[in-house]
Amino acid sequence: MSVKDRLIYLPLGGAGEIGMNCYIYGYGPEGEERLIVVDLGVTFPDMETTPGVDLIMPDVAWLEENADRIEAIFITHAHEDHVGALGHLWPRLRAPVYARPFTAAIARMKMEEAGQPIDVVRTVGPRPALTEAGPFRVAFVPVSHSIPESAALVIDTPAGRVVHSADFKLDGTPIVGEPFDPATWHVIAKEGNGIRALVCDSTNVFAPHPGRSEATLAQPIADLIAGQEGMVVATTFASNVARLKTLAEAGRTAGRSVCLLGRAMKRMLTAAVETGVLTDFPPILEPEEAAEVPRGNLMLIVTGSQGERRAASAQLARGKYLGLEMKAGDVFLFSSKTIPGNERGVIRVMNAFSEMGVDVVDDHGGLYHVSGHANRPDLEAVHELLRPKILIPMHGEHRHLREHVKLGLAKGIAAEIATNGTMLDLTGDEPAVVEYIEAGRTYLDGTRLLGAMDGVVRDRIRMALNGHVLVTILLDEDDTPLGEAWVDLKGLAETTRSGAALAEEIEAELTEFLDKAGPKVITNDDKIDEAVKRIVRQVTMEEIGKKPEVTVVVSRLAVE
Amino acid sequence: MSVKDRLIYLPLGGAGEIGMNCYIYGYGPEGEERLIVVDLGVTFPDMETTPGVDLIMPDVAWLEENADRIEAIFITHAHEDHVGALGHLWPRLRAPVYARPFTAAIARMKMEEAGQPIDVVRTVGPRPALTEAGPFRVAFVPVSHSIPESAALVIDTPAGRVVHSADFKLDGTPIVGEPFDPATWHVIAKEGNGIRALVCDSTNVFAPHPGRSEATLAQPIADLIAGQEGMVVATTFASNVARLKTLAEAGRTAGRSVCLLGRAMKRMLTAAVETGVLTDFPPILEPEEAAEVPRGNLMLIVTGSQGERRAASAQLARGKYLGLEMKAGDVFLFSSKTIPGNERGVIRVMNAFSEMGVDVVDDHGGLYHVSGHANRPDLEAVHELLRPKILIPMHGEHRHLREHVKLGLAKGIAAEIATNGTMLDLTGDEPAVVEYIEAGRTYLDGTRLLGAMDGVVRDRIRMALNGHVLVTILLDEDDTPLGEAWVDLKGLAETTRSGAALAEEIEAELTEFLDKAGPKVITNDDKIDEAVKRIVRQVTMEEIGKKPEVTVVVSRLAVE
Repeated sequence: MSVKDRLIYLPLGGAGEIGMNCYIYGYGPEGEERLIVVDLGVTFPDMETTPGVDLIMPDVAWLEENADRIEAIFITHAHEDHVGALGHLWPRLRAPVYARPFTAAIARMKMEEAGQPIDVVRTVGPRPALTEAGPFRVAFVPVSHSIPESAALVIDTPAGRVVHSADFKLDGTPIVGEPFDPATWHVIAKEGNGIRALVCDSTNVFAPHPGRSEATLAQPIADLIAGQEGMVVATTFASNVARLKTLAEAGRTAGRSVCLLGRAMKRMLTAAVETGVLTDFPPILEPEEAAEVPRGNLMLIVTGSQGERRAASAQLARGKYLGLEMKAGDVFLFSSKTIPGNERGVIRVMNAFSEMGVDVVDDHGGLYHVSGHANRPDLEAVHELLRPKILIPMHGEHRHLREHVKLGLAKGIAAEIATNGTMLDLTGDEPAVVEYIEAGRTYLDGTRLLGAMDGVVRDRIRMALNGHVLVTILLDEDDTPLGEAWVDLKGLAETTRSGAALAEEIEAELTEFLDKAGPKVITNDDKIDEAVKRIVRQVTMEEIGKKPEVTVVVSRLAVE
Repeated sequence: MSVKDRLIYLPLGGAGEIGMNCYIYGYGPEGEERLIVVDLGVTFPDMETTPGVDLIMPDVAWLEENADRIEAIFITHAHEDHVGALGHLWPRLRAPVYARPFTAAIARMKMEEAGQPIDVVRTVGPRPALTEAGPFRVAFVPVSHSIPESAALVIDTPAGRVVHSADFKLDGTPIVGEPFDPATWHVIAKEGNGIRALVCDSTNVFAPHPGRSEATLAQPIADLIAGQEGMVVATTFASNVARLKTLAEAGRTAGRSVCLLGRAMKRMLTAAVETGVLTDFPPILEPEEAAEVPRGNLMLIVTGSQGERRAASAQLARGKYLGLEMKAGDVFLFSSKTIPGNERGVIRVMNAFSEMGVDVVDDHGGLYHVSGHANRPDLEAVHELLRPKILIPMHGEHRHLREHVKLGLAKGIAAEIATNGTMLDLTGDEPAVVEYIEAGRTYLDGTRLLGAMDGVVRDRIRMALNGHVLVTILLDEDDTPLGEAWVDLKGLAETTRSGAALAEEIEAELTEFLDKAGPKVITNDDKIDEAVKRIVRQVTMEEIGKKPEVTVVVSRLAVE
């Protein structure tokens, strides 16, 4: 280790939000550190802030500028917020991608969908296997989570050992995948000089009780299903393979045939079986077979736990789907929690089922769902177990990071909030902020990547809030208006309070303006544009109380 | 009671949703029933379904057609979802409005703001006072809720007694306003032939534990405040006058001066004091006075418990507001619950405070907020107390109404789900559906009332999701294109993947089309419109993967 080498940490996504995880580690001389990227995830758009957008990803402009310094990309697990951006962003980074088998299978799908090469995704085994990446030696250590094969990374550098926790919980009986193994972590913490820095999941830092195991759900779910006479339908996160197994086995035990609805769920299950993480899953019927089974002998497991409009649960809430239909006396189980912001969609589905006479069971009492993240006491247990010199909370909104820092400080661990774009030097006894990098968001919109600040989405929001008025003005060779101004309205009331046509009211005012406009204005497109916009907004505000977006097209017949 | 007279019930809002309450009762011969209206409330728009809309109200077209049959409008309490539409809809109904003093004060404000006469709002006292309205005799019976003076209506008709519960909880110590008085209700249930029908609040039918009293909050809130050293800021619903008092008194007890921020809160407090429902509220500082008080001696009570962007809490989350500012070491208390759908806004505020180093306390543990609605065991107690022949749940989504009907049926009460537009005949032993009325929504948009089906909001949503392309085409006297087609983009990426300008790509295709178009097309605006839209969508989909909204303006120079 040269005197001037340093170990840096830079989150580009996931620190100050829950979603689009992307964390950078670097080692070397300042400004020339060799880099590794941990996770390339997405977050999901909403109508309020990102209408029409398909996916939201971290802005990797800084990484792209330094692409020649990137040694490798590591994917900790196959959740969308950790792997979803891989196919879209990889062409700008072009480094080898490392992941465990199930995760790698999903990562290759992401690459393939985006038309990228799949052979850059390399499958690696768990610790003690090591991946060398420039000055880093990285081991995947199995942790339990709500998807198989989640892995913390033990990252050894010349400046010491960093543990990147990934998403994890302390589950000794996770049904599918490996348990969290304290003995292994005890060894990892004791080797060499111990752990320099723990970069740690903060999602559930406000949950006061110790987390519960996936295994505790089997009995309540089995009891619930055993008591049903109609069809049983359950939804959960498509990637929660352990839950799929618990649900399917409860169905089988109750003498029900099981059918899965939803592309994402089938993909996950297939990947889990093909990569060997899932064995002895109950046999599955195709929808057309399921339609022939008496309702009392059937169980559907479906996508759409967040009320997503296109998922199977919402389709069933609207009526027949793939020949299957909910009826009075059926039961629908949400074996899931509602992610904040998705409440309206979930409630919409619940009420649609209620109208059909279907009994909806949610996780109100905590019987039918457990979280995949470590709760507050679990985090404290991990702090104790690993005894890091430095704690950097990640995977949380600001309030989660802040609370997690408090936990660390209370234990005497040097802890620091580092939100997206904050570069920390982890070489010393305490983390030091050394630089702020521009860390924005990139939107996948159709097939294009847009910067969040490009103004495209801002214009959409404005049209949605204010409506859009289009004005066409024709001027002849002498700059004389040819006919009247023409006004089209979109997203605005067509008539005024008095019953007059709004477009005609605006046209009348614009015609008057054009008639009176002097040569200085009429020969200048910018001045016309400005004046027309002002008049349109004024008339529209007076007549219907709205201040619309305005587009003005001036066509001149003058030969140029 | 003539043989053919009947008693009808018709919800136009609030049944199948939580919001925009509006219930009709009628008595008389079929189709000629004299009518009373109970409540005229609003519900709030959201970006997902109603962008740009200011307020959502029930569609009162049916009532308007039958305006000559309306005897009176009764307002049960002053919450927006019960009185908010009064000023906007009253001109279409024009019947006298009855309410208790505090509610009447707010109702008059609503009338005044909408430019309507305020003297049609008549103040009435509680039972035993009676309001005669055609065949109805109506008494306001105080119930406890989260606003002063909520009142159930005891509606006597020749067909028997109906109790309209309004929003209520069983609170014997509500701090401000009257307690729920079982003895009174016992009398009401026993008089005459007892209660024919109970039309009852269903909001909290899924809450399994008995509701708690407003009075239980005083100690926990006082304890929380007593332990603080920085400024204390608390938010709650502006209309929860009892909570304002509890918060202010806790502040005073801790030696803090109290300042209120937010117009809605001050209005409510003023109305409560002026109508005598609130006495001995602690003295209040103006913001400019508060700015002079040491932080440790100051408490702010502010609007914006739902994270509303313009409310005081969000203003403080963005920085200085009226000379006051949050700092590290301050505490912010949400003495409220987050209404489903508002999570994102509330979380945004929480994280902004977290960034300032402010400790945010929410009602996670149930210490700092109680609901204003009766929980499941409370509803069962009311069923027991009133022993109605018929139970009609209201004030709930479909799932709440359905669950509430189950409760009633389990007790042997004839119960029926009646969602908005369902007219029930309550004359017989069991409620009978006799008609379905078109019951939609009316939007206040700027100063205009729009029908939800008018297409205006649909166009806004489409522009927000898909962007908007404007095409201007100029044709001369011979139907020959004059220059090229002109394309403007709004809410769309400007460049294609190859870096070309999207507008130019579209223009090129359109020019080619115009050059080739035969006389049949070029002389027909509809055919041009159709073809241009198709081409624009096709090119845009190919180039950037979006299918935009398109507006085509064809200008012809031909003399007509």
